[in-house]
Amino acid sequence: MALIVQKYGGTSVGDVERISNVAQKVQMSREAGNDVVVVVSAMSGETNRLIDLANQISESPDPREYDVLVSTGEQVTIALLSMALNRLGCPARSYTGSQVHILTDSSHTKARILDIDEAQVRTDLEQGNVVVVAGFQGCDEHGNITTLGRGGSDTTAVALAAALKADECQIYTDVDGVYTTDPRVVSNARRLDRITFEEMLEMASLGSKVLQIRSVEFAGKYNVPLRVLSSFEQGDGTLITYEEENMEQPVISGIAFNRDEAKLTILGVPDQPGVAYRILGPVGKANIEVDMIIQNVAADSTTDFTFTVHRNDHDKARAVLDKVAQDLGAREVKSDNTIVKISVVGVGMRSHAGVASTMFEALANENINIQMISTSEIKISVVVDEKYLELGVRTLHDVFNLEQSPDV
Amino acid sequence: MALIVQKYGGTSVGDVERISNVAQKVQMSREAGNDVVVVVSAMSGETNRLIDLANQISESPDPREYDVLVSTGEQVTIALLSMALNRLGCPARSYTGSQVHILTDSSHTKARILDIDEAQVRTDLEQGNVVVVAGFQGCDEHGNITTLGRGGSDTTAVALAAALKADECQIYTDVDGVYTTDPRVVSNARRLDRITFEEMLEMASLGSKVLQIRSVEFAGKYNVPLRVLSSFEQGDGTLITYEEENMEQPVISGIAFNRDEAKLTILGVPDQPGVAYRILGPVGKANIEVDMIIQNVAADSTTDFTFTVHRNDHDKARAVLDKVAQDLGAREVKSDNTIVKISVVGVGMRSHAGVASTMFEALANENINIQMISTSEIKISVVVDEKYLELGVRTLHDVFNLEQSPDV
Repeated sequence: MALIVQKYGGTSVGDVERISNVAQKVQMSREAGNDVVVVVSAMSGETNRLIDLANQISESPDPREYDVLVSTGEQVTIALLSMALNRLGCPARSYTGSQVHILTDSSHTKARILDIDEAQVRTDLEQGNVVVVAGFQGCDEHGNITTLGRGGSDTTAVALAAALKADECQIYTDVDGVYTTDPRVVSNARRLDRITFEEMLEMASLGSKVLQIRSVEFAGKYNVPLRVLSSFEQGDGTLITYEEENMEQPVISGIAFNRDEAKLTILGVPDQPGVAYRILGPVGKANIEVDMIIQNVAADSTTDFTFTVHRNDHDKARAVLDKVAQDLGAREVKSDNTIVKISVVGVGMRSHAGVASTMFEALANENINIQMISTSEIKISVVVDEKYLELGVRTLHDVFNLEQSPDV
Repeated sequence: MALIVQKYGGTSVGDVERISNVAQKVQMSREAGNDVVVVVSAMSGETNRLIDLANQISESPDPREYDVLVSTGEQVTIALLSMALNRLGCPARSYTGSQVHILTDSSHTKARILDIDEAQVRTDLEQGNVVVVAGFQGCDEHGNITTLGRGGSDTTAVALAAALKADECQIYTDVDGVYTTDPRVVSNARRLDRITFEEMLEMASLGSKVLQIRSVEFAGKYNVPLRVLSSFEQGDGTLITYEEENMEQPVISGIAFNRDEAKLTILGVPDQPGVAYRILGPVGKANIEVDMIIQNVAADSTTDFTFTVHRNDHDKARAVLDKVAQDLGAREVKSDNTIVKISVVGVGMRSHAGVASTMFEALANENINIQMISTSEIKISVVVDEKYLELGVRTLHDVFNLEQSPDV
């Protein structure tokens, strides 16, 4: 008998019928002999309805009261799902974040979980109940209701799984797992049976938005086995694991990409200490998130500095950079918002030489010019012209044989 | 400086604009130098929306989960009202029933308040905050969310006022006070400046449904001065007081009436001990609420027994009574669902003889036949044919000079 934490997002509990379907899924897991804790989000649309009410009252609603307001969304779902389970003859009890003692800091609208007192949940499980917990919410040490911010329900599920030392934390979503790349771009993209946490982090931040990064980090920190499954279809989904040293890893797990990039280059800046800060400081202050940053060794007394931002931020970043260039006495600013980023991701590349050259050769064979290169331990990213996105992704998916299951 | 508890019902907080109006009313009271605690209901329609969701899931939703569900309605309102107050520069903090420790028994959907820990509220008031509390809800000793049932928000307000020893509990509603009778029947009906708790109880149960009886009883028990005011208009409303011995009381405070009555009579039942129970037991078991009960002294070895019920229950009650009559060997059953009840109410009648004869004479002068009479300490009720309702009420309003303020 295993202890499973299941999490269902807003789309999965979007109406009464879907809530009934979720109840059946939970009951099946229960009948398979598992103890089940369910974490749910607000019904899709509900949180927006509440935020809209708040915005009608005030342009900047009090954050404490904002949390009191939006936390009702999940409370509605836990009650309805528990009713549905009880109606199926599957005894269930609901708990708000406060009731199950999900202790957070006091940063309203983006609180961090500090502790979970899992005693009540254990008692209920021992009595044969399914425990249904409101995601996304907790309370601070003074009893104030808090919410966790974006992806908060995933975080609640992982935190509960960690506190309960659950055998698995199952995240039900509208996709049936993590793919080698986007099936809309590569038709024979393959669902991965498993992927490591580190790969998942690289995949997620590169645009494969299956799980919130924060919950993946959180799961990794507490060694919680995480599984992504579909709410609507049968299937085993993708298990997100820790890298096992002895296990033969596939070299490359997937091809991630990001369509919405823009690059900005400042040319001929004096090659001096502090210059990176003098460039990126004003960008950060303008609330622009920077993705890749590349600075090559200086050829002479000046250097070139390039970074990428979200395409929507291009014009704002360009204005900031023009000003910075003037202050620094730089030669020129160039920018381009018709670029994309393509990355190969895989923990196996640590122990396998030649991944980079295979990648670059494949792109060269298709005459795709590489504008920028950046690497980490387990990924290699290139920036190319946006017109090459599909061709580049398909070529790389092909050359690394991702359509085939690895022989393990 | 006074401590005021204000309660606003669902219509008063029915949309964002009305919530903003309530915030202004609260701010005015605050600026007049009062400490203010506000109790609010769910926005009108919201509770029904939630109940509808529950009924889509299950015909008989689990009561514990039902309370988790419907209690979100008030939680939304406290958050929105607190936001509106904060936006006006009037610092406010919201509390759910659980957060403010409104301890109830565990009778889900109809819980009774056992205790209130008012320490948090006092601390907030001392810090200059308006405290906004969710009506209608509490939690039991195990931390389960409970709701109080119909009129629950009034009860919350009165209980908080009692716990805080507030100077006044103000119930804002869609009428501007308690009237001598229904202004739709008697155009010169007059708003009462004050009315005693006992009169209010008689008026309320007789159909002047301004306040829930339960909250009036509760206020009386804890000596909480209660005031009924309009949410939408200015005015002092009606203060509900304890009878002050030294105060000159008006003889009659108002004329109450009830259109929806039916009477049933069982004739010629043996005049024996236990016969009343043998008649009313089956009626109660059929879930029929009985209003007046009249049994006159027996003329011979048999007696006649009459009671009134809500008109909707007439047919069901008649069927029960036909069966009972057979069992008891009674002579006959008669019933009539075209009757109404008219009552004069006033604590002053205790010390003033002649109220009954004035009443009966006035009705006789209009040729209104009295079918039944029943009296309590502070009211006299008569049952008459429904066609006499308006004439009877106007006649009595007139003969007791209720259109004029009493000389006190």
